[in-house]
Amino acid sequence: MRPRFCETDALGHINNTVLPVWFLEAREPVIAIFTPDPTLSKNGLAMVHMDITFKAESMFGSPVTVTTTIGKIGNRSLEVVQRAWQNGALTAVGKATLVSFDTVARQSQPISDIQREQLQQHLDGPDAEQPPT
Amino acid sequence: MRPRFCETDALGHINNTVLPVWFLEAREPVIAIFTPDPTLSKNGLAMVHMDITFKAESMFGSPVTVTTTIGKIGNRSLEVVQRAWQNGALTAVGKATLVSFDTVARQSQPISDIQREQLQQHLDGPDAEQPPT
Amino acid sequence: MRPRFCETDALGHINNTVLPVWFLEAREPVIAIFTPDPTLSKNGLAMVHMDITFKAESMFGSPVTVTTTIGKIGNRSLEVVQRAWQNGALTAVGKATLVSFDTVARQSQPISDIQREQLQQHLDGPDAEQPPT
Amino acid sequence: MRPRFCETDALGHINNTVLPVWFLEAREPVIAIFTPDPTLSKNGLAMVHMDITFKAESMFGSPVTVTTTIGKIGNRSLEVVQRAWQNGALTAVGKATLVSFDTVARQSQPISDIQREQLQQHLDGPDAEQPPT
Repeated sequence: MRPRFCETDALGHINNTVLPVWFLEAREPVIAIFTPDPTLSKNGLAMVHMDITFKAESMFGSPVTVTTTIGKIGNRSLEVVQRAWQNGALTAVGKATLVSFDTVARQSQPISDIQREQLQQHLDGPDAEQPPT
Repeated sequence: MRPRFCETDALGHINNTVLPVWFLEAREPVIAIFTPDPTLSKNGLAMVHMDITFKAESMFGSPVTVTTTIGKIGNRSLEVVQRAWQNGALTAVGKATLVSFDTVARQSQPISDIQREQLQQHLDGPDAEQPPT
Repeated sequence: MRPRFCETDALGHINNTVLPVWFLEAREPVIAIFTPDPTLSKNGLAMVHMDITFKAESMFGSPVTVTTTIGKIGNRSLEVVQRAWQNGALTAVGKATLVSFDTVARQSQPISDIQREQLQQHLDGPDAEQPPT
Repeated sequence: MRPRFCETDALGHINNTVLPVWFLEAREPVIAIFTPDPTLSKNGLAMVHMDITFKAESMFGSPVTVTTTIGKIGNRSLEVVQRAWQNGALTAVGKATLVSFDTVARQSQPISDIQREQLQQHLDGPDAEQPPT
């Protein structure tokens, strides 16, 4: 993705509030495993925890790549691990804990076997710590 | 309202995409005339036109006052006139044309007499061109 | 560009404040004609007017294409015409009047012949009113 | 602060990417201890870690109160603890680790005694876990 000029701040770099937005955008394929259309479906993913470690500034003018992998998978929740890269350098690592959620019943629900299989194809590992090519 | 640091951009001032957000926030009392809870009601206001003239930069660190008045009132639409002020200076003038909208039937609907009376209590005029005190 | 889930609002569509952000992103090649790096250069484009006509809702889940052409070119200012398309339909038309600006001297400056030539290669016309393919 | 309508998403609540923005706004008095004007000063606070636990949804239509206290204070860094409340309920807890930063030399710098004294007047404690009145 390309940083937007309005995502910079007066310090000349990307404001730290923008990383959660980029990570959300890059998490969409994970969300799609649970709900084909998050604006309509009763199934969703509720965020219970977000954790971002900032390694370096993100700047305007160079593309950013966000990689998304799956950490732990629980009965009703999963951890998504995300890394933002710019110019070959790791700029931020994000972890999001998401709960499978029935938005009508308003309660958590188990992760199905089919969902689990799809998630397991994208497990985090040493490869994800290498810069994307 | 107070400008947020993340609303600045790398040029050191408030990014021009922020003014529509401030104007939307300041338009909420107008929206409330049509729908007590815009997240639930079938009645809403659909924006058909937005027009902003930028008079001066908006800066971080000083409060901004947005005044909201009503311009023309039609059968199904109205014009909202908004002015952003900072440190006594007019920084932006916005005009929004909004249509009363039935979000279930997905079509415009007439402005009611009660709505019209409420709108007419806030008509734009020379007073609105003076800095707020 | 792909709409971001956080760009939706409680009405289930893209909030109207997002269009100025998309248009800004799509205007970057125009900005690049005036300043190779807007975070560093003394040359810039100051927005004096923004005008958006909303033709239809923008929705999450389908890509959006924004076309950017040049309208009138003055001595020190230019008009940028932008159209947002989704699923073959025109959803919004934006016009932005921008002034060539010396951010150090803090005053407008003439558009150079080189800049004018580059702008003239992207003039608005009937072709731009057709859906992008 | 009042939630903005554009901060909702298609699920009808405040999008999770908005909490970091609210927390940044509420952190401004902490930033002011380090730099009177973050758009101009060479002193700043660089974020190295952000951590948010979501306890409940935040909704449009009711004011949100964010309390800000200071957790651990190190030699060059500090932890800011923030809690968002709406309608008497705790909706989110955020922790931000910030490093005192010289933006010209581009390196961290010690927290001064004066800064430390000011921070110590706002230490986190059991009182901060009670709903604001």
